[in-house]
Amino acid sequence: MDGDSYVKTPATSFNRHKERGTYDAETVHNIVNTTSVCHVSFMPSPDDPFPAILPMIAQIGHFPDSQDDAPSCYLHGYVSSRLMKLGADGTSSSGVPVCVAATKVDGFLLALTPFNHSYNYRSVMLQGTATIVDDDAEKMWAMELITDSVVPGRWANTRVPPDKPEITSTRVMKVRIERASAKIHTGNAKSDRKDLKNEEVVNGVWTGVVPVWETFGTPIPSPDNRVKDIPAHVADFVKNENLNAEELAVGAARAEE
Amino acid sequence: MDGDSYVKTPATSFNRHKERGTYDAETVHNIVNTTSVCHVSFMPSPDDPFPAILPMIAQIGHFPDSQDDAPSCYLHGYVSSRLMKLGADGTSSSGVPVCVAATKVDGFLLALTPFNHSYNYRSVMLQGTATIVDDDAEKMWAMELITDSVVPGRWANTRVPPDKPEITSTRVMKVRIERASAKIHTGNAKSDRKDLKNEEVVNGVWTGVVPVWETFGTPIPSPDNRVKDIPAHVADFVKNENLNAEELAVGAARAEE
Repeated sequence: MDGDSYVKTPATSFNRHKERGTYDAETVHNIVNTTSVCHVSFMPSPDDPFPAILPMIAQIGHFPDSQDDAPSCYLHGYVSSRLMKLGADGTSSSGVPVCVAATKVDGFLLALTPFNHSYNYRSVMLQGTATIVDDDAEKMWAMELITDSVVPGRWANTRVPPDKPEITSTRVMKVRIERASAKIHTGNAKSDRKDLKNEEVVNGVWTGVVPVWETFGTPIPSPDNRVKDIPAHVADFVKNENLNAEELAVGAARAEE
Repeated sequence: MDGDSYVKTPATSFNRHKERGTYDAETVHNIVNTTSVCHVSFMPSPDDPFPAILPMIAQIGHFPDSQDDAPSCYLHGYVSSRLMKLGADGTSSSGVPVCVAATKVDGFLLALTPFNHSYNYRSVMLQGTATIVDDDAEKMWAMELITDSVVPGRWANTRVPPDKPEITSTRVMKVRIERASAKIHTGNAKSDRKDLKNEEVVNGVWTGVVPVWETFGTPIPSPDNRVKDIPAHVADFVKNENLNAEELAVGAARAEE
């Protein structure tokens, strides 16, 4: 990081639609931190030509008691997963090179031709080296960060702190961010001049945006649940998410690009 | 593929929650084909330790006039993108090894402890070699497949066929699938016996599922649009997606795992 931005590198430069790209740290962090599942890519083995991708929960944060001069991307996964094994392997003590991607689709843009169809979206790609978090205090902090990213306040409203076996069998990975960038597209469908001048086409093809967003439904109690009322932290989460999501998707469609 | 299933390989075996895993081809194809944006991972350069991920539209299909004995995964992207350049590069004429991931989250499972929290989800990881589709007939077929995956019937309701410059500047990649697997998790939140026996915990912590799904909003005409009524293929798409999505997410929460 350099001030409030990630540094532009050849690997994260924008080849197309440069106006949609940004290195602004707040934008990058916000997209990752509001995406419920991110995709983490790595090379599982030197003998295998294919990269692998795992869906994981990712949160960017800055552990207050650390020596780090910049926020890291924390990943939640399982002891047995391939990535965690690589990270725990003595030969990879310097860390595993990974890529983390977060993408949110806000709308489908339907133009006069398939060629001009597009999405409204917000996406992030970041690259860095992943290591397993060994420090107990940092690990507990990251587990709370990740839990509260799913439903704010959830950590404090459950049985905590985790006991010894739970802490041992939960692994948190920390990606020190080397490069990061975001890409955002908003606006309505745009068509080429040649088609806009064609009366038959313009009068025959509907163009516009179908906005799309995530809706959270009425919480469904588990068979084991004995708490009669849905607690405020869950009810508020559903209410707030549903309020903002539609506004954001419709706002993206109405925005000037 | 071997009959109706992908072949189990060490790289796609399930280390954890084996009961959630499947190699069933129809399940794999269905998850990819109903995910509006997939994540495609590759190694951009031999000099760079980090993999890259691009968000792309992916569709699995079997081009009728091909010699292929199995369906491939078709990817839509741009000429200038890094992956397409690698695919077009003479040195990679045998193709670029890629991983394609599709993930849909159906619900947040809130248990008595953060440790037992989980998601309901459907995810696919497939690996294979990506090449650029050169055959004009196959390319046109794939462009229609991809366009109609966004909104069914859209291709026939736009100005088609694409003209020469449009065809030239659109690139379609084809991933010959070497390995593929899916993972599906359904059901309600589950907690450990030790916590279920703890009266204070059980009476204090609400447990259950918050279902989540994609909602499509009222289509917003573009400033250029001159067609007064929203056409049936767009209106039906919105109606059908919204009908099935909630049903699926709530159904997943109510299903026995």
